[in-house]
Amino acid sequence: MDIIQQIVSGDVRTIARILRDIDDELPSSRSVLQRLYPHTGKAHVIGFTGSPGVGKSTLVDQIAGFYRKESKTVGILAVDPTSPFTGGAILGDRIRMQRHFLDPGVFIRSLATRGQFGGLSKSTNDMVNVLDAAGKDVILVETVGVGQDEVEIANSAHTTVLVTIPGMGDDIQAIKAGIMEIGNIFVVNKADREGSRKTVRELMNLIEINSRRRNGDDWEPQIVETEAMKGRGIDKLYETIEKHRTFLQATGSEKWREVVEKRTKIQLMGALRDEAFKAVLERIEARGDSIDELVRRIVDRELDPYTAVEQIVDKGLR
Amino acid sequence: MDIIQQIVSGDVRTIARILRDIDDELPSSRSVLQRLYPHTGKAHVIGFTGSPGVGKSTLVDQIAGFYRKESKTVGILAVDPTSPFTGGAILGDRIRMQRHFLDPGVFIRSLATRGQFGGLSKSTNDMVNVLDAAGKDVILVETVGVGQDEVEIANSAHTTVLVTIPGMGDDIQAIKAGIMEIGNIFVVNKADREGSRKTVRELMNLIEINSRRRNGDDWEPQIVETEAMKGRGIDKLYETIEKHRTFLQATGSEKWREVVEKRTKIQLMGALRDEAFKAVLERIEARGDSIDELVRRIVDRELDPYTAVEQIVDKGLR
Repeated sequence: MDIIQQIVSGDVRTIARILRDIDDELPSSRSVLQRLYPHTGKAHVIGFTGSPGVGKSTLVDQIAGFYRKESKTVGILAVDPTSPFTGGAILGDRIRMQRHFLDPGVFIRSLATRGQFGGLSKSTNDMVNVLDAAGKDVILVETVGVGQDEVEIANSAHTTVLVTIPGMGDDIQAIKAGIMEIGNIFVVNKADREGSRKTVRELMNLIEINSRRRNGDDWEPQIVETEAMKGRGIDKLYETIEKHRTFLQATGSEKWREVVEKRTKIQLMGALRDEAFKAVLERIEARGDSIDELVRRIVDRELDPYTAVEQIVDKGLR
Repeated sequence: MDIIQQIVSGDVRTIARILRDIDDELPSSRSVLQRLYPHTGKAHVIGFTGSPGVGKSTLVDQIAGFYRKESKTVGILAVDPTSPFTGGAILGDRIRMQRHFLDPGVFIRSLATRGQFGGLSKSTNDMVNVLDAAGKDVILVETVGVGQDEVEIANSAHTTVLVTIPGMGDDIQAIKAGIMEIGNIFVVNKADREGSRKTVRELMNLIEINSRRRNGDDWEPQIVETEAMKGRGIDKLYETIEKHRTFLQATGSEKWREVVEKRTKIQLMGALRDEAFKAVLERIEARGDSIDELVRRIVDRELDPYTAVEQIVDKGLR
């Protein structure tokens, strides 16, 4: 059977292999992605975003359980920060989703950040496309919501869930400053902790303040309190996620299309950025120019970095 | 007086204006940066990196005080996540460094992240160059250590201080996974909290495990416990930072040069990535091609995004 057919029919080993190829940035993965693309566009992509320690993995685990009860298949992508030097992935290190490991209806993959110069959001999107083509009904993407690549990832979901916990004032500041507008659902996890009501009120205020920017027919962000470890509030979160999907897909509504176009544009721009950089680097190399020699000249103040970049990009583009 | 002379002589208003121009990405700022570059290379750049809520700002504030006691001038850059949609900065929102506001020896600037497609590390580096040329002896850069741009920023300091607090197990995981190798000094802040010794032990283990990768003459990462709010342990942190600087600058040692070359390379690559992307976008626009029309065709599956990017980059580079 052809590799495309194998992926589309959900063959786990072939899916795992192509995801690994994407992670390793093998050029061969591109043609597979090109041919898979017509099979994509059916999955509901849900992003879970929040600081380390707020319990995103546990929430994702629980929500996956709800979708499994409805016999829907689930893909999970956990985006972890990893070494900028070794580039090594720490597969499974942060995954606590033990109970789904033996369920063939759930596919779990952990992603490393890729070195220093971008590409994280691109590989995440590529992997989402693979799982989508493989027929997963729901794809859950877990990411820390700080950093531009990470915001890009959160932004490329159909439904974005922002997760916080009581007493993280700085977290609320970060949400306020950075990712307020991309949140469709706000979760206050560990809601048994002191200060949960206060956090909910702060979020309500932020939603209220932000309502000026919303149109009448826009989705109004919802707040859900959970205790993921005990499974409390997950039913409410599941319902709210489904409500958001129904809202987007309502008959006659253009919302789903709008979200899909927004996602596609973000992904296109991200991929363009990565590929333009790669192409310029390849041309420098092909011409036999040395980055290290340029660095030496800049350090010795024989050349300034602004002129150097200008010249390289000009030459690389000619 | 010429703008370059004004900046080099430390004129606060001119410095503030050029930093604003950089933030606004005014093309005119480039020629200023080009001409300022020969005046750079003297400052000691110290990065403070850690999750929201660990007390980075307070630490930076306290360390600034120590340098002021030695009559050294200080520049502070706080890199905050901000809205991917509005692009607006939240100047001062997170800055609690009240007592330095009236001190002309301290220059404080808060940076926003820039939209969705990169440029954060580039503007941070540009601003560091301005403050360096303006004669600041020490430049303190505060950033959340998650996300690739942020890791790039942390990586472009001479001395990198990683800050955590007791009981953030996930934080230790993140350090382990992502930024262990770039930490020269580890701070356990809020050391009066339960679990401080445990956190120190975990960090010691990580340093020990990582020691395999170090050469005999490499710096051995140090751990400092602090209570920044009460000013405890800051003297020790200050001494350790100075010890690292002395280590790098020791007579006959090539360490400082190595660090400077590493920083320069990271900055050059980051700037290349941003400029290559910008150049390709400009060419698309100049040709009258429409990104939105491409998006529509991709959403309608008339075209796949991989082929689209390939074609755009190829055309943009021809």
